[in-house]
Amino acid sequence: MIYIVGIGPGDKDYLTLKAVNIVENADLVVGSKRALGLFNLDEDKKIILTKNLVEELKNILNDKDTKNKNIAILSTGDPCFSGLLKTLLKIGIKKEDIEVISGISSIQIAASKLKISWEDYNIITLHGKEENREKLLNLIKNHEKVIFLPNNLRDDVKFLISNGINPETKIWVLENLTYPNEKISLKSLKEISEGEFSYLTVCVYEG
Amino acid sequence: MIYIVGIGPGDKDYLTLKAVNIVENADLVVGSKRALGLFNLDEDKKIILTKNLVEELKNILNDKDTKNKNIAILSTGDPCFSGLLKTLLKIGIKKEDIEVISGISSIQIAASKLKISWEDYNIITLHGKEENREKLLNLIKNHEKVIFLPNNLRDDVKFLISNGINPETKIWVLENLTYPNEKISLKSLKEISEGEFSYLTVCVYEG
Repeated sequence: MIYIVGIGPGDKDYLTLKAVNIVENADLVVGSKRALGLFNLDEDKKIILTKNLVEELKNILNDKDTKNKNIAILSTGDPCFSGLLKTLLKIGIKKEDIEVISGISSIQIAASKLKISWEDYNIITLHGKEENREKLLNLIKNHEKVIFLPNNLRDDVKFLISNGINPETKIWVLENLTYPNEKISLKSLKEISEGEFSYLTVCVYEG
Repeated sequence: MIYIVGIGPGDKDYLTLKAVNIVENADLVVGSKRALGLFNLDEDKKIILTKNLVEELKNILNDKDTKNKNIAILSTGDPCFSGLLKTLLKIGIKKEDIEVISGISSIQIAASKLKISWEDYNIITLHGKEENREKLLNLIKNHEKVIFLPNNLRDDVKFLISNGINPETKIWVLENLTYPNEKISLKSLKEISEGEFSYLTVCVYEG
């Protein structure tokens, strides 16, 4: 069985008991170095993913030796939100061979920090979804509440400004949530278009 | 400090380490009997909420004896999705007196069971949000993907049918997720309009 295990936003405290349990009992645990570091694991159980995520996963999952093992694949946040579930289905892994363990998404941590309820918000990811920029633009034009994962925040914001959104419009920028260098600030689009931001960023527009 | 602690969908395994830690170290823990049962707590730390949730919370939080204590309030799912955060803000608790601990929402468990990615779905709650029925209707009319929390599933579905949605339209009904009596079925609106369902239900329309 292949377990896709959501490990939450990064801080160990947001692991679920189920994630810990499945990972500790798996035959093999696959993930980034950072993700693997959240667990107490024997060295010979770990497989570290580096840059060619898709190719590396394909090789691991098609290897004869791993076919009948319990493999836990660590996915940041929730595997079902802009996570590894889609990647695995894309490389041809069958739904019936997968069990997914939900994890806390950075979207949720953002809501918890600002004390807002995300059922009132449109939720959009721009990660690898160019077409969603247009959707984001229209929502902000209509002053609708949005929580979004930027792709490249500076570029995304330049796109909004060049398509008619007022540069003084303010949005929350939440960087590195739950990490020691967490930073939460309310900034104008103009300021953002001139700034530098973490690639671990969630944005909130309050409408 | 008032901690609003997300306890996930119901199964203890979906508690986060942070939730366990905060609850075990709180001076008082407030929640439903079922929610309190997920933790190992001394009897004198527990306050059981019954039916008048809002009145009971008001009384507890305005009591002089509890003013300077660390109080953990248990919220099913994620406090920031159709959860207790909104309730507390409504009764006048200030944002700065609250810390919110995210929990796994039943929306996420539904996605994990069906192995779908919820960034591709519109997410709607009908719990106490009559106006969202109209929104749901329009989304289904346009064959857009939706995950929704019904208010009263049978009535909600009758509303859809009487407003022109084909009764043969199929949706997933996911009841009592993570509980021993969990049940997942794909049903037509017609079948649903004649059935009985748990009040712990999530629905998914795949568009």
